[in-house]
Amino acid sequence: MATINDNYLKLKAGYLFPEIARRVSAFAEANPDAPIIKLGIGDVTEPLPEACRTAMVKAVEDMGDRTSFHGYGPEQGYLWLREKIAQHDFQSRGCDIDASEIFISDGSKCDCGNILDIFGSNNSIAVTDPVYPVYVDTNVMAGHTGPANETGEYGGLTYLPISAANAFTASIPHEKVDLIYLCFPNNPTGAVASKEHLQAWVNYARAHGSIILFDAAYEAFITDPTIPHSIYEIEGARECAIEFRSFSKNAGFTGTRCALTVVPKTLMGKADDGSEVALHGLWNRRQSTKFNGVSYIVQRGAEAVYSPEGQAQTKALIDFYMENARIIREQLTAAGIAVYGGVNAPYVWVKTPNDLTSWDFFDKLLHTCHIVGTPGSGFGAAGEGYFRISAFNSRENVNEAMRRITEKFRV
Amino acid sequence: MATINDNYLKLKAGYLFPEIARRVSAFAEANPDAPIIKLGIGDVTEPLPEACRTAMVKAVEDMGDRTSFHGYGPEQGYLWLREKIAQHDFQSRGCDIDASEIFISDGSKCDCGNILDIFGSNNSIAVTDPVYPVYVDTNVMAGHTGPANETGEYGGLTYLPISAANAFTASIPHEKVDLIYLCFPNNPTGAVASKEHLQAWVNYARAHGSIILFDAAYEAFITDPTIPHSIYEIEGARECAIEFRSFSKNAGFTGTRCALTVVPKTLMGKADDGSEVALHGLWNRRQSTKFNGVSYIVQRGAEAVYSPEGQAQTKALIDFYMENARIIREQLTAAGIAVYGGVNAPYVWVKTPNDLTSWDFFDKLLHTCHIVGTPGSGFGAAGEGYFRISAFNSRENVNEAMRRITEKFRV
Repeated sequence: MATINDNYLKLKAGYLFPEIARRVSAFAEANPDAPIIKLGIGDVTEPLPEACRTAMVKAVEDMGDRTSFHGYGPEQGYLWLREKIAQHDFQSRGCDIDASEIFISDGSKCDCGNILDIFGSNNSIAVTDPVYPVYVDTNVMAGHTGPANETGEYGGLTYLPISAANAFTASIPHEKVDLIYLCFPNNPTGAVASKEHLQAWVNYARAHGSIILFDAAYEAFITDPTIPHSIYEIEGARECAIEFRSFSKNAGFTGTRCALTVVPKTLMGKADDGSEVALHGLWNRRQSTKFNGVSYIVQRGAEAVYSPEGQAQTKALIDFYMENARIIREQLTAAGIAVYGGVNAPYVWVKTPNDLTSWDFFDKLLHTCHIVGTPGSGFGAAGEGYFRISAFNSRENVNEAMRRITEKFRV
Repeated sequence: MATINDNYLKLKAGYLFPEIARRVSAFAEANPDAPIIKLGIGDVTEPLPEACRTAMVKAVEDMGDRTSFHGYGPEQGYLWLREKIAQHDFQSRGCDIDASEIFISDGSKCDCGNILDIFGSNNSIAVTDPVYPVYVDTNVMAGHTGPANETGEYGGLTYLPISAANAFTASIPHEKVDLIYLCFPNNPTGAVASKEHLQAWVNYARAHGSIILFDAAYEAFITDPTIPHSIYEIEGARECAIEFRSFSKNAGFTGTRCALTVVPKTLMGKADDGSEVALHGLWNRRQSTKFNGVSYIVQRGAEAVYSPEGQAQTKALIDFYMENARIIREQLTAAGIAVYGGVNAPYVWVKTPNDLTSWDFFDKLLHTCHIVGTPGSGFGAAGEGYFRISAFNSRENVNEAMRRITEKFRV
């Protein structure tokens, strides 16, 4: 009989968000009239910017005429989009990134998982704790870990705790690790990394020949001008970092699907025979063979983000969500609840009141306030006792949610 | 230093189509006035059906209003699309396939590659020769093969030759293989499999606990009513087959991107401890963790394929390409060139005139006729001496291409 990938059997009970969905739908079924407000999954709620919609309608029309019809596009994405990204997101901030180093994809989640395809199976891997579960689960699925212990930590991974105790900055490890996942602005804690902190990571990576997998999906929410938006703002990062970006959160593309990954041509990995091989060529081969590019229509929508109207409209969208974050921070703080993040990120990281466990607070919030958030322990053992509240919702829902929470949980 | 996936270094000089693109662009640069006609890559050329465009414009509009806005959708695809597929493509043909067994994706190429994620690394694998290169290359990348020999065959794979000698039907192997890739209507030969032939494969797979990976991307081009469109028309296939389908060729979605994979819940694989595990759950976990669903806009476009207008328009599109195929067959046959396929598939498989090698014929056709086709040897050693001509182009271009070829190559 054909065998399965046994590593899948090491995975814990289910990816965090499906488990949340399961509990919410069980509650909703039992309480059909409860006015549930979801501040859990980091999904946007506001309309797609008009500039993107106009561009996509035009692109659909292009598909109706054989002279402007688009069949298979380049697996790496259309150059007109890659060039705008290179210029607006990187070169304008002093990052030496060329359009040919940018790969358009249908999602950062996909790329974060698929990137492991091009690496060897013997690399040591570090993740922060708490952490976006996809980094961990995809390593489990690829056989890079042992089984999980009772707190949910997988053998063989190096966990770098981030908590209030170290101001939510991961300490540089003493031992050598080959692949390091960093996400700033951080999901789930909402913390950011200073230029100095990232420089220390780049120095570490260059000293050890490590690769930093830098997830910058939330860079658009940075309000502090001293905080880097890209790892490539750091000296030496072209030699040690891959960066993931997304249109999901800045332009509301969670349901439209477009993202990008930057693999500098100067980035090298080691082959079995000791020779150095450029990762750019490997990722290009991976994408050419196992991917067929993003919809022409969607790429035209993403391109419109860089038009003057698109820039104004995405900025308004971000400002809107960040005002939500400010309200959440302010209301919870006034109620005596300790909060972190939410200043340069759309996530507020809440210390659970009365030392409730994360899932107990989740259930309590759902049952007494009809509010859905995300249990911190779902992001890792060090997230226990924390809770993530996302700023993605209407102003009305955010205000109402804060009213309900502060009424029940005033400390 | 971080190590790379050394298996990538076993891959031959490049995926077939990029190599063709390289030669064509070199020729075009040297001969900017040559009126090149491309009948190479299987890419559609005619406008997207109006029903799909109308639905996508409406979907873009949905995204402009927060009450009809769609953020993250189900990773498996929207149920309204999966249900229509289950009903129209499967249940209407007597296949016992439920909507929950259908996973929407952004491409069959992606799924054909990604499906290996859920299987063990110790399975024996069979492919036909010639074969769609993605099946082979993704196995090489996953470390399932040895290095390639001088004819391009990778150690450890079982190659099943298909040629005129066996009427382009792969013989059932004597030895046991665990995973078998079958593609009917076949890319590249245009051959089809009868119900009896597929039944023999299903019987073999069930006897050995093998899994058939059945690529039905071209099923819409079947004109012979006795030929099965789905492997699930075969008794017992629910216990041994995964099927890949695509909107690329039937509805012209090569640049719009939508496909689907069917994993019946009755399909099992073996874990290390000998227990049986349902592949459906593993694929669901793979997709939930490493994929984020297809664009809402694109899924609405795919749904429109199943409306009465969409059905009529896609049928007209297919009829159009199949008339091209008929013209290609007729013209080449009249010129004394032996052709296969092109009756139930959009590909005509040509025996190269004067026993030219496939790449020699490619270069000759490009240089003397300015026609681009696909060298048969690019699909495998047994494709040497053959050449694939695709029916995807305008009537005018097909007529002109046939005029040029028959003028130069009349045998």
